[in-house]
Amino acid sequence: MSAFKIVILPGDGIGPEVAGAGRLALETVGDVFGHDFTFEEKMIGGIAIDTVDDPYPADTDAACLAADAVLLGAVGGPKWDLKPKRPEQGLLAVRKSMGLFANLRPMDVAPSQAFRSPLKEDIVSGADMLIVRELTGGLYFGKRTRTETTATDECLYTVEEVERVARVAFEAARKRRNKVTSVDKANVIETSRLWRETVNKLHAAEYSDVELEHALVDSMAMHLVTRPKDFDVILTENMFGDILSDLASVLPGSIGLLGSASLGSTGKGLYEPIHGSAPDIAGKDLANPMGTLKSVSMMLRHSLNLSKEADTLDAAIEAVIKAGILTRDLGGTASGSQVSKAVADQIRIQA
Amino acid sequence: MSAFKIVILPGDGIGPEVAGAGRLALETVGDVFGHDFTFEEKMIGGIAIDTVDDPYPADTDAACLAADAVLLGAVGGPKWDLKPKRPEQGLLAVRKSMGLFANLRPMDVAPSQAFRSPLKEDIVSGADMLIVRELTGGLYFGKRTRTETTATDECLYTVEEVERVARVAFEAARKRRNKVTSVDKANVIETSRLWRETVNKLHAAEYSDVELEHALVDSMAMHLVTRPKDFDVILTENMFGDILSDLASVLPGSIGLLGSASLGSTGKGLYEPIHGSAPDIAGKDLANPMGTLKSVSMMLRHSLNLSKEADTLDAAIEAVIKAGILTRDLGGTASGSQVSKAVADQIRIQA
Ligand SMILES: CC(C)[C@H](C(=O)O)[C@@H](O)C(=O)O
Ligand SMILES: CC(C)[C@H](C(=O)O)[C@@H](O)C(=O)O
Repeated sequence: MSAFKIVILPGDGIGPEVAGAGRLALETVGDVFGHDFTFEEKMIGGIAIDTVDDPYPADTDAACLAADAVLLGAVGGPKWDLKPKRPEQGLLAVRKSMGLFANLRPMDVAPSQAFRSPLKEDIVSGADMLIVRELTGGLYFGKRTRTETTATDECLYTVEEVERVARVAFEAARKRRNKVTSVDKANVIETSRLWRETVNKLHAAEYSDVELEHALVDSMAMHLVTRPKDFDVILTENMFGDILSDLASVLPGSIGLLGSASLGSTGKGLYEPIHGSAPDIAGKDLANPMGTLKSVSMMLRHSLNLSKEADTLDAAIEAVIKAGILTRDLGGTASGSQVSKAVADQIRIQA
Repeated sequence: MSAFKIVILPGDGIGPEVAGAGRLALETVGDVFGHDFTFEEKMIGGIAIDTVDDPYPADTDAACLAADAVLLGAVGGPKWDLKPKRPEQGLLAVRKSMGLFANLRPMDVAPSQAFRSPLKEDIVSGADMLIVRELTGGLYFGKRTRTETTATDECLYTVEEVERVARVAFEAARKRRNKVTSVDKANVIETSRLWRETVNKLHAAEYSDVELEHALVDSMAMHLVTRPKDFDVILTENMFGDILSDLASVLPGSIGLLGSASLGSTGKGLYEPIHGSAPDIAGKDLANPMGTLKSVSMMLRHSLNLSKEADTLDAAIEAVIKAGILTRDLGGTASGSQVSKAVADQIRIQA
């Protein structure tokens, strides 16, 4: 039996509902496999702005830094759009403070689910990729200036920043289909040339067993739509990764099924579904908890080293989908809590 | 009868073949409608590097600056990938020198063509958008630094730069379905906040009759795939526009059908198909000239003020497609020059 400290950041909109589903899954896993999870709930995003006028309060930060893993629901909403302090600042702050430089976004389209995709089925059926996005560098965290008539943002990358996230991609590829596609705009910008050189050097020095190809970001956006099955691990910088991972996320036809992990150099990480806070359906028990549950499975695997438990949760999720216990966004009639409860029941059955 | 000076920059790969088709169309239009086109061919890109060691030679620049309009084939190819001078530098240089700050990329999917799209037909059939991309600012032309371990690129925008390209978008919207979607990443970067504020101000002051909405670049990448029919004019900055316009270009299922215009504050402009130099099929008379012919139609309309002539060319292109005279990429068996000749014949018939 092991003990794990989990911080939960429910956030805004449907965040609390889906985070609650994640907590139930963890509690059930703890119960069934005999682990001791302790939970601490902290504020982030809009709710934190409303309550303590800070999207990332100091006690949230302290708790995250002391946790074994963090589960986040969602942040943001139109309510804060015109406010000077923005919910998203909380998200950027927790990434920076925890040193979460690698964002992992798996995306796959099982043949049985391809009918949901906006793409034609033969193009997308069987696609299975992992996007590894650099998360604490580039334009997102660069120096900014602003005058009445001019604004600037700086995009900066160091060899070390590129190397550590490239390493994550190569390591992941070795456990998958052994291929990395590194995405940049090396024909125009300097940071992309540094990116490409660094990836090439690391590849030659330590990962020459992994197949490596380079793609320009504009071409990659096309490839994701025209031949998504050709990719295994996609490695890219922060802004390109933001765009490409969201683009890839619509291919399965429901973003409600996708989770993500943000990792640093320790085993600790932050886990969140890739959907937003969906304020229009908040509080109605309609939100699909599956993306959060997939994120919990990634947490079990990457931060807590509980791969058997992660396999069980994955199997439970699959079984519930097969049984047709689906929320509205997937064409079903179940409430979010019915799905969450069904997965918890399946954890006990599958274990 | 009017006289027009046209500079042709054939460039690399299939560039000369498709540029030749463009020239034939212009000659035919001149013949039929009694205009006097004079042509001057100049080097750009890889061929210019190979010949005079400069991707954008001074005499090319002088000719472009003196022309009424410029037609470009394509630049680049793997041959120059590892060379210090790159063909793309020629493209960036001509944009900057001619002051071409607005890149116009129309994309539409006629219901009869929707079967070609990688998207499901009901999602994409009837989509009809114009992407207006800022072309001489942002990361593309910012200050760069490089040391052994660090690289930076600066993204800079001024109010004036945003205003002039936004104006192009609003004006275009008035002639279309009267809607502009402005794309930025205002929740993270400063240049995007300047962008959004400037677009809002200009809209309020001069274009409040046009519907305006804002989208974040990551969301926009999703929307283009899930609901492309919802957009009319899409306005965005240089790098985002590069990515989004390429993404949009695959929706019709053949990038061989799409043209583009790059415009400055005078009527002059540069016109080019959106496809690349396709070195694998160069010299085989297989390249589809339709993208170049669409670009020529844009040239007639935007730079030469010959809208009747442009309508005729558009009708000729439509007639040839309807007649099934198609290159391989569209499932046909015609050669590039057969298509080009068929369009020229149709110009005479349709006029
Ligand atoms: C909310 C925003 C700052 C964030 C980002 O752009 O990183 C989000 O889009 C994401 O991808 O997690
Ligand atoms: C070749 C390259 C510099 C260029 C760009 O990125 O602008 C191209 O991709 C384009 O979109 O015209």
